[in-house]
Amino acid sequence: MSQFDNVSIKQSANIYFDGKVTSRSLTFSDGTTKSLGVMLPGAYEFGANEEELMEIVSGKLELLLPGSEWQTIIGGESFGVPANSSFKVKVIEITDYTCHYIK
Amino acid sequence: MSQFDNVSIKQSANIYFDGKVTSRSLTFSDGTTKSLGVMLPGAYEFGANEEELMEIVSGKLELLLPGSEWQTIIGGESFGVPANSSFKVKVIEITDYTCHYIK
Repeated sequence: MSQFDNVSIKQSANIYFDGKVTSRSLTFSDGTTKSLGVMLPGAYEFGANEEELMEIVSGKLELLLPGSEWQTIIGGESFGVPANSSFKVKVIEITDYTCHYIK
Repeated sequence: MSQFDNVSIKQSANIYFDGKVTSRSLTFSDGTTKSLGVMLPGAYEFGANEEELMEIVSGKLELLLPGSEWQTIIGGESFGVPANSSFKVKVIEITDYTCHYIK
């Protein structure tokens, strides 16, 4: 199982959509940040200020990126999110994700 | 907001009760471990191999410890769990917790 070392983590969780999406914010020694989250089945829309790489650790979802078609994403796959955009997901199976914020 | 520094965190979440309870496992440089978790409203029972200190960061729950009465715990409060025991909770409001494992 992979892990991240030498990070700082906020003690308080980020809680969205009545707890159906929750995450933890990590800061790395080089100043970069990631969030580790869990999405329960449901439909959600997320805004992205910065460019993001969404790594799906496990689970299954349908994804709609701006100007694209619905596509299925499963554990082990990733997708990029442009800065200043938003994306929709329909979570089919509990999804564990890592959001890498691209500086 | 308090944070933990210089920790290692497993990338995969711990997922229990169909995602209604999830947590992340942290390892500190001194070898001690903690888990940061979120419990959604519902009734759960947890086993404790090691002695634990459960710190409730935010939320509200009813707690039943072995040989005790039901009691209400809210954000900012903590409770101890003996090693090799179990405890029941009825989560009333989404609860963000830190479980400190006592060596």
